[in-house]
Amino acid sequence: MAAVARAHAEALDAADPLAGFRDRFVLEDGDRIYVDGNSLGRLPRKTAELLAARVEEWGSRLVTAWPDWIDLPLEVGDVLAPLVGARPGEVLVADSTTVNLYKLAHAALDVREGAVVARAGDFPTDRYVLQGLAAQRDRELRLVDDVRSALAPPVALVCLSHVDFRTGALEDLAGVTAAAHEAGALALWDLSHSAGAVPVGLGAAGADLAVGCTYKYLNAGPGAPAFLYVRSDLQERLRSPIWGWFAQREQFAMGPEYDPVAGIGRFQAGTPSVLGLAAVEAGARLLAEAGSERLREKSIALTSLAVDLHDAWLAPLGFELGTPRRPDQRGAHVSLRHPDGWRICRALIERANVIPDFRGPDSIRYGLPPVYTRFVDAWDAVDRLRRLVEEGAHLQVEHGTARVT
Amino acid sequence: MAAVARAHAEALDAADPLAGFRDRFVLEDGDRIYVDGNSLGRLPRKTAELLAARVEEWGSRLVTAWPDWIDLPLEVGDVLAPLVGARPGEVLVADSTTVNLYKLAHAALDVREGAVVARAGDFPTDRYVLQGLAAQRDRELRLVDDVRSALAPPVALVCLSHVDFRTGALEDLAGVTAAAHEAGALALWDLSHSAGAVPVGLGAAGADLAVGCTYKYLNAGPGAPAFLYVRSDLQERLRSPIWGWFAQREQFAMGPEYDPVAGIGRFQAGTPSVLGLAAVEAGARLLAEAGSERLREKSIALTSLAVDLHDAWLAPLGFELGTPRRPDQRGAHVSLRHPDGWRICRALIERANVIPDFRGPDSIRYGLPPVYTRFVDAWDAVDRLRRLVEEGAHLQVEHGTARVT
Repeated sequence: MAAVARAHAEALDAADPLAGFRDRFVLEDGDRIYVDGNSLGRLPRKTAELLAARVEEWGSRLVTAWPDWIDLPLEVGDVLAPLVGARPGEVLVADSTTVNLYKLAHAALDVREGAVVARAGDFPTDRYVLQGLAAQRDRELRLVDDVRSALAPPVALVCLSHVDFRTGALEDLAGVTAAAHEAGALALWDLSHSAGAVPVGLGAAGADLAVGCTYKYLNAGPGAPAFLYVRSDLQERLRSPIWGWFAQREQFAMGPEYDPVAGIGRFQAGTPSVLGLAAVEAGARLLAEAGSERLREKSIALTSLAVDLHDAWLAPLGFELGTPRRPDQRGAHVSLRHPDGWRICRALIERANVIPDFRGPDSIRYGLPPVYTRFVDAWDAVDRLRRLVEEGAHLQVEHGTARVT
Repeated sequence: MAAVARAHAEALDAADPLAGFRDRFVLEDGDRIYVDGNSLGRLPRKTAELLAARVEEWGSRLVTAWPDWIDLPLEVGDVLAPLVGARPGEVLVADSTTVNLYKLAHAALDVREGAVVARAGDFPTDRYVLQGLAAQRDRELRLVDDVRSALAPPVALVCLSHVDFRTGALEDLAGVTAAAHEAGALALWDLSHSAGAVPVGLGAAGADLAVGCTYKYLNAGPGAPAFLYVRSDLQERLRSPIWGWFAQREQFAMGPEYDPVAGIGRFQAGTPSVLGLAAVEAGARLLAEAGSERLREKSIALTSLAVDLHDAWLAPLGFELGTPRRPDQRGAHVSLRHPDGWRICRALIERANVIPDFRGPDSIRYGLPPVYTRFVDAWDAVDRLRRLVEEGAHLQVEHGTARVT
């Protein structure tokens, strides 16, 4: 199969209705091609402004600004909600994805008996948190390749990534949720690789719980606060294991007994990160303005271009596509597998100025966030990769396993 | 007793070796007197610069900056360590005080049988976290006025604030730690109102565990990451209940089994807040430069001035000092109690441009962080308070109980 020409990618860019969004981000790339926005998204120009303004607000208003800050975890949750198919009052921005997963999985085990089911190849922090909880609460943990095959009751909780961090495969959110419910379990989704990347229909699927990261496709910056979702009718029945003062009814009465508020605020713990929340708000507003459907349309075109170029150029060089070929079965990154993937990835960074990342054992991930990635970026990134392997430049890199970027 | 004259306060400022530190902070006060640095500390000028630089670093270097960021929780912990009497490798900056308290208290209950002992009047989030853990882990919770009276074995954990958030009373860290050990318990200290305010000798006292806040006397900004301390010889024996990927040995190998690193890093959970850590580092470096001993000397002089003025001016107006009179028994804030305290506090803010805060049922807190508070600030803040009460300005304020500032 002949590869599409670069001119084709240029034509796609010229016709891209989202093309203008690229300039809303800081772009200091020079010759660099950045395809790791699925690990750390770019800095929106507006975010730099908003962070500076919030720092100034801290300096000038000091504690008197707290009335304007104190509801941010819920308010920014409401900004984020449409991106994951949730309603106002169902999303909270707080803590890290890991801590949120712990809180919600713990809460689920309070109200459901039985095993915890998750995927053996899922993101490590998800597996580790569930291992810990299963050990602490004396539950069976079923870590399997296909969660649907492991739902023999009693099952308390099914926990799964919506988009697989390694392969980019998109799970059937509604189908797995329904299967979990049929088994008597709650379904907890990790949206780290889907929020802002693909439309997420939590409400339509009847999903129970979700967590996710904001520094990938939501572009909120390194270690920005994560989010959590609890379906509204479930909120009153669940309780965070971490009984913190930011969840307390009449917080400043500081009463003797813990008595969490109604609503999503009851999943708060400590004092929220005001700077972090400003960045999440800016990132989520930008994605919402671009619009989930337009983003998805462009994303499919971007990943399809990368898949086509893989087939034309990379497959003959020993690559294998790690990502589903059907566009409706994948998210916004493609996984390019090669037995020498680690060295190739290092060479890409050091010699070709392409920044992807590597996930063991053999996957080079090309993240193509549609809000700022051009079709020529996708084309050039695959082109540089095939040239590099054709020239054998990676063979001069020492073997290793450490983090690449 | 006659009140000291303002000229005396001016003379103290003129002789203050730390006077120059005030200009290291953003000061946009105008007529305002800020005495709530014990709730939210000021913005160091350097912090605004560092945050802007880190935002720029995110924008330009993107994911390639992670190698410089990934160890920040430990590195900034090492910067903070001398301020709490800890050694390198004993302090971690991560998560919120609430989440850290949960992690360490949970870990302590893994290795000790028996009750949890804490103070009934301690900060709410501490009490709530312990209530939750006691319920979840089926332990007796002894919430008492004097923890030393409640140490009948078996006791697993004694948890206490080093400086009381309401009264400013300074606990005997070494004495209570020794008593806890004698009872077979671990001692967990909340340093939120002492780190950066008074010298903290965790190591010298043989303290086991500690947590604390960085946005008060450490001036790291609203909701900045908190810290935790685990004595080095205890680290290997303890395990966080939240098994996150940032604690994992060979994190990017992403192996199947959770296997936490040796050292303080094992108490990490999710991805650290890079911006928040920059602010904690700047704040801690500034305090360390001022020096714990010099800060303490000035702090005692400041609170002594406030106590003297209370006795001369406020006691005759129905006030009662809520803070210990012995300087070695108090921290860096004074508590001024009055039956009409809530209304007086509101009037102070609205009519006298003095910003303290209020803690029920009757305490107006004057926080006097020595690194940037002048003696004339302390003098003026008490002077405005007595004038206001003498004039009865607070009688025009409606009664209430909500958060004041």
